[in-house]
Amino acid sequence: MKLATIDNGTRDGALVIVSCDGQSYLPAPEKIPTLQVALDNWSESEPILQAIFQQLKDGKGMSSASLNYLAPLPRAWQWLDGSAFKSHGDLMDQAFGFEPKQLTKPLMYQGMSHQFLSATADVPFMKEEDGIDFEGEFAVIVDDVPMGTTAEHALKHIKLVVLLNDWSLRTIAIPEMKTGFGWVQAKPACSVAPVALTPDELGTAWCDGRVHLDLVVDWNGKRFGKASSAEMGVGFHELIAHAAATRDLCAGTIIGSGTVSNENYREIGSSCIAERRGIETLDTGAAKTAYMSFGDQVRMEAVSDESSHLFGTIEQTVIKKAL
Amino acid sequence: MKLATIDNGTRDGALVIVSCDGQSYLPAPEKIPTLQVALDNWSESEPILQAIFQQLKDGKGMSSASLNYLAPLPRAWQWLDGSAFKSHGDLMDQAFGFEPKQLTKPLMYQGMSHQFLSATADVPFMKEEDGIDFEGEFAVIVDDVPMGTTAEHALKHIKLVVLLNDWSLRTIAIPEMKTGFGWVQAKPACSVAPVALTPDELGTAWCDGRVHLDLVVDWNGKRFGKASSAEMGVGFHELIAHAAATRDLCAGTIIGSGTVSNENYREIGSSCIAERRGIETLDTGAAKTAYMSFGDQVRMEAVSDESSHLFGTIEQTVIKKAL
Repeated sequence: MKLATIDNGTRDGALVIVSCDGQSYLPAPEKIPTLQVALDNWSESEPILQAIFQQLKDGKGMSSASLNYLAPLPRAWQWLDGSAFKSHGDLMDQAFGFEPKQLTKPLMYQGMSHQFLSATADVPFMKEEDGIDFEGEFAVIVDDVPMGTTAEHALKHIKLVVLLNDWSLRTIAIPEMKTGFGWVQAKPACSVAPVALTPDELGTAWCDGRVHLDLVVDWNGKRFGKASSAEMGVGFHELIAHAAATRDLCAGTIIGSGTVSNENYREIGSSCIAERRGIETLDTGAAKTAYMSFGDQVRMEAVSDESSHLFGTIEQTVIKKAL
Repeated sequence: MKLATIDNGTRDGALVIVSCDGQSYLPAPEKIPTLQVALDNWSESEPILQAIFQQLKDGKGMSSASLNYLAPLPRAWQWLDGSAFKSHGDLMDQAFGFEPKQLTKPLMYQGMSHQFLSATADVPFMKEEDGIDFEGEFAVIVDDVPMGTTAEHALKHIKLVVLLNDWSLRTIAIPEMKTGFGWVQAKPACSVAPVALTPDELGTAWCDGRVHLDLVVDWNGKRFGKASSAEMGVGFHELIAHAAATRDLCAGTIIGSGTVSNENYREIGSSCIAERRGIETLDTGAAKTAYMSFGDQVRMEAVSDESSHLFGTIEQTVIKKAL
């Protein structure tokens, strides 16, 4: 099943069900006005929404051409982002000049969740000097997960999969990491591709709590990376168990994979600029690729052999914040 | 004006207005059902709620004796906690064995906000070995704050002041800080005193973006600390400006002071156990006070010369999470 949220002038938008090819849609029923409401009562909502998805398969939808998509959850109660790709972590340590980390648990931080930007919105930042960078990654959305849930039991709490761009301000990130408090200023709002998928919709590309898809990233129209998310060091179920170790997770919590990255990064490229700078540092002793400038564009899409329309496309321009 | 939220079976509870002495209350009107709704449209809500507060002053309230208070915001879209007391930071570095930090900006982390516990709820934790600790602090709740707002302009966005206990798991906190990603497992849900105050209600105790009140902390019936919050190194307006440097803050964002702490900690005690352990480490080379055990109680109250009822009382027991 494919779900999306369209702009209706409210902070949470209106839930719609989208056809497999993304060309048609039907609205959700009145009693499930938003994706958050659907997630709050997923066992009740899911069959109702699936029945509408079947109607779309039967050709009963309306054209989605004029829809104005928001992020599937334009705001969420919780956003916890992992860093589950080992090659990404290693290259970030290179880029930032950090010692390699000795890890016994998954890496994860709590990010801002009161605003997720749409996939096509211009993204405002204060200054180029802050080191504007994109980060392509996948994330899952869960229902209520009780404190102490194990990884084994966490899999069944994964209700939706999304594609997102976790915007980062690298110049600020390094000193924030050194405080031990994690990121606040370095992690502004993320952008999310329009369509949220139930895991079954991914077919064999959903396996072992991982998304087995390539993430294609283009920067200013030029291919920047095409890394497979299958290389995740820990699965989403393990990230969920980590997050729920000492807290209940509310329905609608979004759990991110961290930047998609592969060991053969020299062949397939990267999903963020900092990682390329890490490679340059490894190769030549210094980074040479600059971070983004105002007016730059980034495009992200997940691709599979079977489908050309999965999550839809993230395609954005960074702009200077108007004050 | 004094506001509170009572349990009505919903996740956000029902907004009520409370009298100065906390003995009586009146419900908010139907169009302002929750505190979040009030904050979303504060300029419209505030005069309506103030008029009801005036009715309470005129003796028109009902008895609040049987009310079941939740946290003022039982869940919030954003919780950003500072660490604005220098003596606290210094003692925590001692307690955790860290080098003193060289800071050019306020310290702040993003905490979990989808659940704030009531002031009297038992607080469930998985294991005593995680190092269960309380942290007494004040926080402010803002309306919408645009990205780039300066400290000078931030003051007017402070709509409410609250008292809270920022529960921490110290054994987990140290390795999480070392990752640079900040805390996830080490920072479960906070508890909040029942009454949220508009700053004017604090009279002269609201000054320079700081709460000039003593925070009285008792652990298992024994005085543990009575530190003044006036010693905040930066004011709440400066914390807000820090938080808003690269993001918009939504209405209902809660900004915390960090653990209240004073330079004369040997006389006035502490607002968290880790700080006492830092003092012991300074004095004897080793911490001797253990963290909390299941069944332990903590009580927190802010006191002033003029009023015995400000935010109400936090009084809680830590229990083992039932699985």
